[in-house]
Amino acid sequence: MEKGLLVVISGPSGAGKGTIYRNIIARTGMKRSISVTTRKPRPGEQEGVDYYFRSEEEYQHMIAAGEFLETAEVYKNYYGTPKAPVFENLDNGHDVLFEVDVHGARSIKKKYPEAVAVFIMTPDFKTLEERLVGRGTESESALNTRLGAAKRELSKYELFDYIVFNDDAEAATQQVLDIISAEKCRIKNNLTVIKNLLN
Amino acid sequence: MEKGLLVVISGPSGAGKGTIYRNIIARTGMKRSISVTTRKPRPGEQEGVDYYFRSEEEYQHMIAAGEFLETAEVYKNYYGTPKAPVFENLDNGHDVLFEVDVHGARSIKKKYPEAVAVFIMTPDFKTLEERLVGRGTESESALNTRLGAAKRELSKYELFDYIVFNDDAEAATQQVLDIISAEKCRIKNNLTVIKNLLN
Repeated sequence: MEKGLLVVISGPSGAGKGTIYRNIIARTGMKRSISVTTRKPRPGEQEGVDYYFRSEEEYQHMIAAGEFLETAEVYKNYYGTPKAPVFENLDNGHDVLFEVDVHGARSIKKKYPEAVAVFIMTPDFKTLEERLVGRGTESESALNTRLGAAKRELSKYELFDYIVFNDDAEAATQQVLDIISAEKCRIKNNLTVIKNLLN
Repeated sequence: MEKGLLVVISGPSGAGKGTIYRNIIARTGMKRSISVTTRKPRPGEQEGVDYYFRSEEEYQHMIAAGEFLETAEVYKNYYGTPKAPVFENLDNGHDVLFEVDVHGARSIKKKYPEAVAVFIMTPDFKTLEERLVGRGTESESALNTRLGAAKRELSKYELFDYIVFNDDAEAATQQVLDIISAEKCRIKNNLTVIKNLLN
């Protein structure tokens, strides 16, 4: 059996990676990764469904033991992707889809170079600005911070295998699905079946 | 402007590469390559449409001048893919699709490593045998020759980027279209637009 595919979707805030991620999870049998966090559960959130909730001490032990594919601190809370369940899915032939920021994508590529990393970008920065303004939640200084971050993130394009320009969420979703379909056809992802045919 | 994509479809006789090639040419704006040949024109065949017809002497001059991406002798006639019109199309941003045998694919990859090479294969050798028998044109010894050649061709899988198992011509055509769509999203095929965005 061939291993599953680990696909990482990333890109700047406002480029629409969350919508594309949810579309693909809804339309395929791809597994999503459940994060570990030190943040307190919100009402209705379930252990092992929404997150694995851990104390900060437990979290630090997991970091020290190298149990994360990527980990980040956001507003004093930690969020991380545990290796073990992801690798178990891949070994069982299941494809796994992640949505992470560019730091997370770099970390995953470093620990698992076979990961397929897709950068989601608006057609240009003007469109990104309009989308962020359209949310109506950003102060001008927060907006400028996000646009600066977006430019720095795009400048890391060499970390990625693919870029999808999200002009239309449906078309962009289809392009990511095409990328996944193509990756399943790569020679290196078919070595078991090819060698079986030749023997 | 980004360069066009050179896509090469190959695989054993009977795997269905010709059907997939024709489907893709019919559904996309991809350019096909017009071969040079030393064979005599058949009734209705037009210079520059079906083939470029050349004398054997002219053909040998073209080989000596390195004007071919690949060239092969078939039943005392030469057939070859001239470089110049292909490179002109690619430089103008047009995608080009080839259907060639495995020797041709190797030759093209050697001269143009950016080419995307797709191996078309039946799900197994039994299916290949049934399809060849179904044609009703093969003697038993010709059939065995073809099956042996198919196995040797598949054993060259490392020359290729992708493999598509053609169980159903429509699904296989779609997979090749997905591969082309994905390749258009590769970072290396978007460097001009990324660099423009960053400047």
